[in-house]
Amino acid sequence: MNKKLYGDKMRKVTVRSPATSANLGPGFDVFGLCLEEPYDIISVEKIEDGIKIEVDGEKSGEIPTEPDKNTAGVVAKAMMKDFNIKEGIKIHITKGIKPGSGLGSSSASSAGVAVAISELFNLKPSKLKLVEYAALGEGVAAGSPHADNVAPAIFGGFTMVTNYNPLEILHVPVEMEVLIALPDIQISTKEAREILPKKIEMGEMINNVGKACGMVYSLFKNDIELFGKYMMMDKVVEPRRAKLIPKYEEVKEKVKDKVYGITISGAGPAIIAIPKKEYILEVKELFEDVWGRVYLTKVGGGVSVLEKL
Amino acid sequence: MNKKLYGDKMRKVTVRSPATSANLGPGFDVFGLCLEEPYDIISVEKIEDGIKIEVDGEKSGEIPTEPDKNTAGVVAKAMMKDFNIKEGIKIHITKGIKPGSGLGSSSASSAGVAVAISELFNLKPSKLKLVEYAALGEGVAAGSPHADNVAPAIFGGFTMVTNYNPLEILHVPVEMEVLIALPDIQISTKEAREILPKKIEMGEMINNVGKACGMVYSLFKNDIELFGKYMMMDKVVEPRRAKLIPKYEEVKEKVKDKVYGITISGAGPAIIAIPKKEYILEVKELFEDVWGRVYLTKVGGGVSVLEKL
Ligand SMILES: Nc1ncnc2c1ncn2[C@@H]1O[C@H](COP(=O)(O)OP(=O)(O)OP(=O)(O)O)[C@@H](O)[C@H]1O
Ligand SMILES: Nc1ncnc2c1ncn2[C@@H]1O[C@H](COP(=O)(O)OP(=O)(O)OP(=O)(O)O)[C@@H](O)[C@H]1O
Repeated sequence: MNKKLYGDKMRKVTVRSPATSANLGPGFDVFGLCLEEPYDIISVEKIEDGIKIEVDGEKSGEIPTEPDKNTAGVVAKAMMKDFNIKEGIKIHITKGIKPGSGLGSSSASSAGVAVAISELFNLKPSKLKLVEYAALGEGVAAGSPHADNVAPAIFGGFTMVTNYNPLEILHVPVEMEVLIALPDIQISTKEAREILPKKIEMGEMINNVGKACGMVYSLFKNDIELFGKYMMMDKVVEPRRAKLIPKYEEVKEKVKDKVYGITISGAGPAIIAIPKKEYILEVKELFEDVWGRVYLTKVGGGVSVLEKL
Repeated sequence: MNKKLYGDKMRKVTVRSPATSANLGPGFDVFGLCLEEPYDIISVEKIEDGIKIEVDGEKSGEIPTEPDKNTAGVVAKAMMKDFNIKEGIKIHITKGIKPGSGLGSSSASSAGVAVAISELFNLKPSKLKLVEYAALGEGVAAGSPHADNVAPAIFGGFTMVTNYNPLEILHVPVEMEVLIALPDIQISTKEAREILPKKIEMGEMINNVGKACGMVYSLFKNDIELFGKYMMMDKVVEPRRAKLIPKYEEVKEKVKDKVYGITISGAGPAIIAIPKKEYILEVKELFEDVWGRVYLTKVGGGVSVLEKL
């Protein structure tokens, strides 16, 4: 098949771009875990010129459609400039991930559009390059090009952002069932970041280094118990953000023998738990009683292409 | 063989207890690496009663022989109390590891005597328990029961102290050639600890978590290049202690393409480098020219029993 011709003839690509859970306790701003659900559906279609963005789905009314203000638009603009793409594109985002929930909603759009554009125009960048583009989008949503959600969205599994400038990502494939609770409250990213300490003690750093390293070790040893245990032992961020989520401490206490670990997802209010097999449904029901929306899902494989036309 | 009888008949055990290198950059107070050389030779022999300590070898004149003031004595006292041992012991330490060098000299004595006593009285404690006893000794040398040298001394290879109270140690076997330089200067542990910042920025913690986690990942992937690269990227401790070691920055610059990584061992003044195979002798010679004493060694397997009589 003549690749160039196929590349020219492709008209529209549709991808599924999943939620991701960043931080995971002591891995604050480093670790990220890809989920299977929830997800956004993103299609990118060739048009005459320009970048058009349509958004529907949950809370879509609050999401800007100007390319410079939508994370997907920022990504598209950068890629089309760098790869010298002359056509225009229409991006359609169906939000399945509630924005501002701590589940990487904006990152799903960034990552999804990066993959969709690279497929539509047959660009074939490396996964790292895709993350770099997706992170540009995050610059507009979060103020700085965080990669700890877009990395797992692109790579799937478990990722660590180990360096910026240049961006370095390490990936470990993981299989795990996961419960996500989504309390129906709003935590502004501003509030969640202001509650962070300006400075920390050496002992706090040493604790987090030890626990985070232990989590990495546990993945290679398939020790889900150790992973979950250390995931709960951040002393810097989680204890401070805990107070922002109603009933969080109570629920943690209630499920302590029924989960390997439970912590805040991203900046919250979503909660992520790794349930023990025999208690999955019990914990799911408790989460539903307390917080309402719950996803019983597993670690996912990253953005996936649904359709190429 | 009647174990109890053999246990009763054993008179003297001699062990070799190796140097260890703690911190390894971003793993400050968490990581430790066991070396093959240099080492202490420690023998423990049954006597009528009491604890007698003899020390010879390098700088032995400066090492106290009162059991309560010698790390080995503190360990012996605790073990003999806990295991209800009625006899006395004579501990003979031949120092091969220069005290106060950043090579875990006192830890070698602590770890060695813990193993020797457990062999002499057939106690069979777990490796973790041996580290706990050895760490008690460190309480008297360093002021607090640090385990980041005694852990690799007991386990061998690469260790992480991931928690205190209770003590938790994770171990990864490692094979690597290592160059140790030992500048002929004194850095008081007090000076080395006072130079540490009282508080650090969140960004500094995040960097160290990422780099340390990357080092753990690299061990499981046998990526010595990544291990060495991240070992050099601590921003909190190493840059501050660097000024205490003459010519350290110059040498780092000179060898940068000839080693995978180079950093300060423990609190210094020892330097640890992971040389690239083709440059081992060249780097060794440079270290000798600049600092004098150099050990070309490799990662070791921990305390080993030399003789049982
Ligand atoms: N394509 C998009 N999808 C979602 N949000 C977007 C998008 N483009 C821009 N935004 C804006 O980004 C903000 C949401 O981002 P924010 O980082 O707070 O939440 P999140 O990505 O859902 O959660 P988190 O990053 O904590 O996991 C909102 O202000 C929203 O209007
Ligand atoms: N058996 C022993 N061997 C060596 N030093 C001992 C011993 N017992 C007590 N000490 C005392 O411990 C101190 C040396 O410990 P220190 O922790 O400073 O150095 P180190 O163990 O060589 O290095 P580092 O811990 O930085 O790797 C000295 O003051 C020494 O007198």
